[in-house]
Amino acid sequence: MQQTRTERDLLGEKQVPADAYYGIQTTRALENFRITGQRLHPALVRGLAQVKKAAAQANHQLGYLPDDVARAIVQACDEILAGRLADQFPIDPVQGGAGTSANMNANEVIANRAIEILGGRKGDYSLVSPNDHVNFAQSTNDAFPTALRLALMERADVLVESLVGLEEALRAKAAEFDDVVKVGRTHLQDAVPIRLGQEFSAWCAAVERGRRRIQQAVEALCEVNMGATAVGTGLNADPAYPPLVIELLSRNTGRSLRPPADLVDATQNVDPLVALSGSLKALAVSLSKIANDIRLMASGPRCGLYEIRLPEMQPGSSIMPGKVNPVMAEVLNQTCFLVIGLDLTVTLAGEAGQLELNVMEPVMGHALFTSIDALESVVRLFTDRCVRGIQANRERCEELVNRSIGLVTAINPIVGYKNASEVAREATLTGRPVREIVLEKGLLTAEEIDEILSPKHLTTMGIARRTHD
Amino acid sequence: MQQTRTERDLLGEKQVPADAYYGIQTTRALENFRITGQRLHPALVRGLAQVKKAAAQANHQLGYLPDDVARAIVQACDEILAGRLADQFPIDPVQGGAGTSANMNANEVIANRAIEILGGRKGDYSLVSPNDHVNFAQSTNDAFPTALRLALMERADVLVESLVGLEEALRAKAAEFDDVVKVGRTHLQDAVPIRLGQEFSAWCAAVERGRRRIQQAVEALCEVNMGATAVGTGLNADPAYPPLVIELLSRNTGRSLRPPADLVDATQNVDPLVALSGSLKALAVSLSKIANDIRLMASGPRCGLYEIRLPEMQPGSSIMPGKVNPVMAEVLNQTCFLVIGLDLTVTLAGEAGQLELNVMEPVMGHALFTSIDALESVVRLFTDRCVRGIQANRERCEELVNRSIGLVTAINPIVGYKNASEVAREATLTGRPVREIVLEKGLLTAEEIDEILSPKHLTTMGIARRTHD
Amino acid sequence: MQQTRTERDLLGEKQVPADAYYGIQTTRALENFRITGQRLHPALVRGLAQVKKAAAQANHQLGYLPDDVARAIVQACDEILAGRLADQFPIDPVQGGAGTSANMNANEVIANRAIEILGGRKGDYSLVSPNDHVNFAQSTNDAFPTALRLALMERADVLVESLVGLEEALRAKAAEFDDVVKVGRTHLQDAVPIRLGQEFSAWCAAVERGRRRIQQAVEALCEVNMGATAVGTGLNADPAYPPLVIELLSRNTGRSLRPPADLVDATQNVDPLVALSGSLKALAVSLSKIANDIRLMASGPRCGLYEIRLPEMQPGSSIMPGKVNPVMAEVLNQTCFLVIGLDLTVTLAGEAGQLELNVMEPVMGHALFTSIDALESVVRLFTDRCVRGIQANRERCEELVNRSIGLVTAINPIVGYKNASEVAREATLTGRPVREIVLEKGLLTAEEIDEILSPKHLTTMGIARRTHD
Amino acid sequence: MQQTRTERDLLGEKQVPADAYYGIQTTRALENFRITGQRLHPALVRGLAQVKKAAAQANHQLGYLPDDVARAIVQACDEILAGRLADQFPIDPVQGGAGTSANMNANEVIANRAIEILGGRKGDYSLVSPNDHVNFAQSTNDAFPTALRLALMERADVLVESLVGLEEALRAKAAEFDDVVKVGRTHLQDAVPIRLGQEFSAWCAAVERGRRRIQQAVEALCEVNMGATAVGTGLNADPAYPPLVIELLSRNTGRSLRPPADLVDATQNVDPLVALSGSLKALAVSLSKIANDIRLMASGPRCGLYEIRLPEMQPGSSIMPGKVNPVMAEVLNQTCFLVIGLDLTVTLAGEAGQLELNVMEPVMGHALFTSIDALESVVRLFTDRCVRGIQANRERCEELVNRSIGLVTAINPIVGYKNASEVAREATLTGRPVREIVLEKGLLTAEEIDEILSPKHLTTMGIARRTHD
Repeated sequence: MQQTRTERDLLGEKQVPADAYYGIQTTRALENFRITGQRLHPALVRGLAQVKKAAAQANHQLGYLPDDVARAIVQACDEILAGRLADQFPIDPVQGGAGTSANMNANEVIANRAIEILGGRKGDYSLVSPNDHVNFAQSTNDAFPTALRLALMERADVLVESLVGLEEALRAKAAEFDDVVKVGRTHLQDAVPIRLGQEFSAWCAAVERGRRRIQQAVEALCEVNMGATAVGTGLNADPAYPPLVIELLSRNTGRSLRPPADLVDATQNVDPLVALSGSLKALAVSLSKIANDIRLMASGPRCGLYEIRLPEMQPGSSIMPGKVNPVMAEVLNQTCFLVIGLDLTVTLAGEAGQLELNVMEPVMGHALFTSIDALESVVRLFTDRCVRGIQANRERCEELVNRSIGLVTAINPIVGYKNASEVAREATLTGRPVREIVLEKGLLTAEEIDEILSPKHLTTMGIARRTHD
Repeated sequence: MQQTRTERDLLGEKQVPADAYYGIQTTRALENFRITGQRLHPALVRGLAQVKKAAAQANHQLGYLPDDVARAIVQACDEILAGRLADQFPIDPVQGGAGTSANMNANEVIANRAIEILGGRKGDYSLVSPNDHVNFAQSTNDAFPTALRLALMERADVLVESLVGLEEALRAKAAEFDDVVKVGRTHLQDAVPIRLGQEFSAWCAAVERGRRRIQQAVEALCEVNMGATAVGTGLNADPAYPPLVIELLSRNTGRSLRPPADLVDATQNVDPLVALSGSLKALAVSLSKIANDIRLMASGPRCGLYEIRLPEMQPGSSIMPGKVNPVMAEVLNQTCFLVIGLDLTVTLAGEAGQLELNVMEPVMGHALFTSIDALESVVRLFTDRCVRGIQANRERCEELVNRSIGLVTAINPIVGYKNASEVAREATLTGRPVREIVLEKGLLTAEEIDEILSPKHLTTMGIARRTHD
Repeated sequence: MQQTRTERDLLGEKQVPADAYYGIQTTRALENFRITGQRLHPALVRGLAQVKKAAAQANHQLGYLPDDVARAIVQACDEILAGRLADQFPIDPVQGGAGTSANMNANEVIANRAIEILGGRKGDYSLVSPNDHVNFAQSTNDAFPTALRLALMERADVLVESLVGLEEALRAKAAEFDDVVKVGRTHLQDAVPIRLGQEFSAWCAAVERGRRRIQQAVEALCEVNMGATAVGTGLNADPAYPPLVIELLSRNTGRSLRPPADLVDATQNVDPLVALSGSLKALAVSLSKIANDIRLMASGPRCGLYEIRLPEMQPGSSIMPGKVNPVMAEVLNQTCFLVIGLDLTVTLAGEAGQLELNVMEPVMGHALFTSIDALESVVRLFTDRCVRGIQANRERCEELVNRSIGLVTAINPIVGYKNASEVAREATLTGRPVREIVLEKGLLTAEEIDEILSPKHLTTMGIARRTHD
Repeated sequence: MQQTRTERDLLGEKQVPADAYYGIQTTRALENFRITGQRLHPALVRGLAQVKKAAAQANHQLGYLPDDVARAIVQACDEILAGRLADQFPIDPVQGGAGTSANMNANEVIANRAIEILGGRKGDYSLVSPNDHVNFAQSTNDAFPTALRLALMERADVLVESLVGLEEALRAKAAEFDDVVKVGRTHLQDAVPIRLGQEFSAWCAAVERGRRRIQQAVEALCEVNMGATAVGTGLNADPAYPPLVIELLSRNTGRSLRPPADLVDATQNVDPLVALSGSLKALAVSLSKIANDIRLMASGPRCGLYEIRLPEMQPGSSIMPGKVNPVMAEVLNQTCFLVIGLDLTVTLAGEAGQLELNVMEPVMGHALFTSIDALESVVRLFTDRCVRGIQANRERCEELVNRSIGLVTAINPIVGYKNASEVAREATLTGRPVREIVLEKGLLTAEEIDEILSPKHLTTMGIARRTHD
């Protein structure tokens, strides 16, 4: 039999585990919401602790909290920030009430820990009250969104770091493969040559743009609506409080937070979250395209393009000896599909805001954390276990370029479209290389054709000229 | 200066073009809604005419409409069904008011045409009234949804027909290519052989399932809520009217329409439209996969898989002589993306229903018509201009199968996994064909290996056995 | 220091925890895939155990597995089905390789447990081999999809059960509120009356249709592609095996499984999963609409509609005394948004199939399990903690009906549209009830108006007639 | 019988209408692509004309085009820019070939018009060739994306203008309603008061942010890949050409266009279009929320919130006298659903890029034009026909505020939470106003309560203090 203590709120009494730091409202939330089987995201818990700490400091400075209560609350928050009491936030991230349960979970845990610090017993809220002290001058409608933004910024930083790692790996490969000429393909049809390094460079550019859009979207989260209280009008908040609490929150977190121009707007409109999600989606689109390209170029080994070789991560078949699959690219695709799907969840939740509040913010937070965490992991794994180990199949690339008829395009400017077409036709019919036919026909000298078909000429801007008359 | 006549409604007077069959409410809708630049879908206009015709017949039989008025209304409806007055439905398909404007557009055009038939002048609604006669015992909330369902059934029939055509074309190709053994690929990596006909057969099966799901979803549209009036309670409708009007509507259209079990439900819930859209989406997913596969298998000609040749539909490049792209497959992909996107539109609109009505039905109709029409067109074009003309590149298929190491899988049961692995390794290192190595090693006789590597054995169920000791 | 044993595969050696039942390939998967932080779904683990058990039985009957090995494998599978070894499936549900890792995880755990049963030591695969024995006549490409379908059927059963519970609760409320007349609203504007019971009945009908569509989609999962081996051709499978293994699987699971008409199709096309997801999405659309309606009708208490009272589940505000929010409806909305988003994930993954296989099936499974589990939970909670406790606010409903001008519609058939309009206008200007004005004007007798404005007349089909001359 | 002329290309001969300016490739495209029933967007046609004009000027300056040919091409382009020849671009916007057909349509029309200008007959391409002259130094892969970006910028400008108009209208209403105190609602439950002006102000802020995100996304389109030729390597392009043609294009269009850092990247990656679409989606989310709020606040007139009155745009019911629906808000919702759906289309197309090119750009363009055009129209109509005419229902707002219990929150700081709760309870039980009970209990003087319950205090930041002791 578990020991319990009795707590009471507006709706009556409930038993709470005696040793729990959380209280009656968390207990109610545990019963009401078992949706995902997951718990509040640790970054969100840290975000709530930061909010409560800065609020306690501000309220203390403004004379609304006694010294010892403020000190105890701050200490409790610091303990949570140090990773303690992590098991005291057991409620589901998807919850009704616009985050009230998450906010009250934090209020209760911090209050009970502060009570302990002050020498009291858990549940004796006369010492430190979850509502009157920890939540002072706050409402769920400002505390939760602010905590969520802090948490998203924290996680986004890690995602950005992993993206920068991917960019570096792609850039290194771009340099390594700068001299590998391969067939370019448009419409999956043979086109003119390109360097393998240019492919990696182009992917890198897309990732970098995607990353910058995320950073831009994250920057907009620096506007936090502390002081809004219930609907953004700031009723029952001291006018000195918002600037002060945001200054303290900035100092404590090392971020440049700022108050919004319009607290009513900031409390009801979640478009900055919708935009952040959209930026993740756009990145996912680019990453999935890269995964597709890599899988295409690694297709084979005998009956595909096989222009690159991927590091072998695990056996791919129990039937065919030696089959190895591009598993890291495949898992990147799948993660991108997850992210694009969850962007729709955020979109739907964003549209469902009504009047003074968007009560769907919890599922927005859940979707965003899930996406960011999964992207961060998969990008790191994909970088380390795929990109860094990619090898060019130089022989194959050269073989295909030589076989390609697209080469003939480069001699157009010298020999004319008509002659070039005849070379192309003969190459098609005989299967012989373009170079051989051009020489045989005496259209160009061996030196000329070697220059025109040189990797540099074929893959950089310029029009071939006859060099030897 | 355009001649006008003056009409009046609840909100006051407006000028209507003197020769217009539509009236004041259509005129208001023209001003209020210019969203897509498109007009009411012709099938929806026909649906409305069917509804108005059956209602007039039923109301006449029940004694609510005089003989001449009923006859004139029915004649006006028949003219619309025959394609006349098509220019009299100029309003935007995306409109507020849950289809009130579309319903009133039909009421006004039919009333004015009936007035003419009865010898009156347009606008003299004392003869035939859009509301009191044409709309008798109806509300927008039953007339519009019923017309929409009739229109969707009509369009879906055409889509189904085009899908059946695609299935036939795929089935014919499956038979034609039944003897073409090619490399099977999983993860884009070489796997064991498969017959080209089996690919077409598998695509055919997916299209057929997709088509059947659409037909199933369309079947649910046979429940039409005529008689629901404003909110489904049937207030001010004669209890004899719903069965009668639905019987007449069934007879006139040749469809087996039926009343829903619950008119309140049928008036507020649009999940049958959401489900129909979902079935189109599922089809689009399968079609896009087929287009992707075809583009992959046609990639090349020199530097891709090139196992099939697509009919050449248009030049593909102004730079490279002879480049032709798989344009019909590409446009199929794009149409599928459009359909999947519009399914989201239908989903969002479906979710936005409130209480007794879903006022977003117009955009649902617009999205569904756009999807069905585009699918119907693209499927027909893709069938005629791509599938029917696909040729197997038999030499290439055979070359790749012979080159493939996956063949070795088939000898596993006889020579054992270890020996098979050694053959695979040697094939990989030397680039020599599996067959050659197996013979050289004396693992199997030429007859045995020919049987095992026969198209039939490689691509049908069974375990190889040693036939010669 | 953790004790380890050394295992080896195609790619080399690795250390595996000495006491782990899983082996080297699971260990590789653990390193390669840390995406969601979650583990294989328990239902999927059970599905894999069912597949392995039936395969062992079939292979034994066909003479491919020795008695003791088959017996030990079956026993190991039965233990897993009984819930043991649950901690031995630690890999991420989102994984590259089309489920190879999940399949090998099962093969390894079952093999090692079977080895133990036969008295051997873990890792001694000469006794029971994960590939040659447990995976005999299977490939990931048939074993994993079959296990996934079994698991989805299992979970869908539970969802269906919870939906039936919701339907019952709604039906009970429909009966309870059958006599509560309230204002009907279309466009959020006052319309004609409706009974509160009819609202619940309509919701019930939508849920029931949604549930039936899911059941229909689940039925299609009964086609399982056992025997397909790598690409659906069944190479290296005994022709007697597929019917036998499916018969055994049906018997063991109590389901009517069947082989598909075309194994190549069944191996590459995942449209049945796309369709299942679509059916979940359509349900989510209906459920979200219901949640929206309930929140609207419960809005207030002083300044909203407040026609129903929801059970109070938790305090709603730390600022406003007594505020309680509709948290169960809100969490239902959010779960629906999650499901609709994840349907997009399934759609994207479905479209990404290529040639002989859709390698994105793991993320499809993950999305489907997440959706089904969340829906099942939220539906149960919403039923128990919201629907069952809803109370009609009869006074408020009556007050609003009496205040409504929409009532006037019902007297139209007797007094005529013109007289009715005058009553409406006077009611609008003076704020007086329609009934009072009708009496004052002597348009109807008190008895007549009482009959016309009776709950029964106002909310059932029919046209008012003058009863007293 | 239509007169025709014979043209010929790579694939053979075709008849072209004799008076058509377009040629054989346009004719092929007309046969291949009948998908949407629509034509190339006029803005895209203008974009193509700008590209062709600048290219002709650049090629002339670099010595690649003779004077007269260049002059004739430029004149033909100028005519198209002036709106002539609009009927010569009849092909479907959704097309395979990555825009080849659109590009060739422009090349052919311009060539034939230039031929006429030079005194030749249509079809005599020896004078001016669609490929060798009009398309000189271009490929579809740079000309089409550049034209698309120019067209999107042009359309986005108009959308931005309409959004600025909406912002101004909202801001004007915010000022007009700045003194109207109303009930604030969170979770659709009564909360503390807010001013009606603050609602409009918050909506305005959301629209403004949405507009700025679009402008930011559009800015990224200024990077145009002219000079990329087939795959971004610039093969067969003069290195002097890209900067020159972009300078000329900037000068001609008045835009600050610039070359991208990496032409290979710019040719294959379409993430700027995905991001633009995402910004439209985020705006649509905000606009739909505003439409929802307006419909909620205008609900009634007798049985809803009815805090605002919307301009009456059209009769809303044929059954109920006087019913008028919020049609402009409803059509805004529906347009937003269309935009959100089409964003998915763009997302899917963006993900489908392969290697050196994204061939799905035509459907991306079609989706973006459809969204932008519909948004632009609906925003303008919604501004003019809804927002500008909204009236505050001041009596109703005041009545609800006085009835509200949320008022009690404001006296918390003076009388304490316990006293405030007692007032709240008594108000709930008796239905009496909070003010009356406070006075009766002697908790505050009439002067104090008048100050605390003043509009200014209730809706601006601050804590009530006792002013009279």
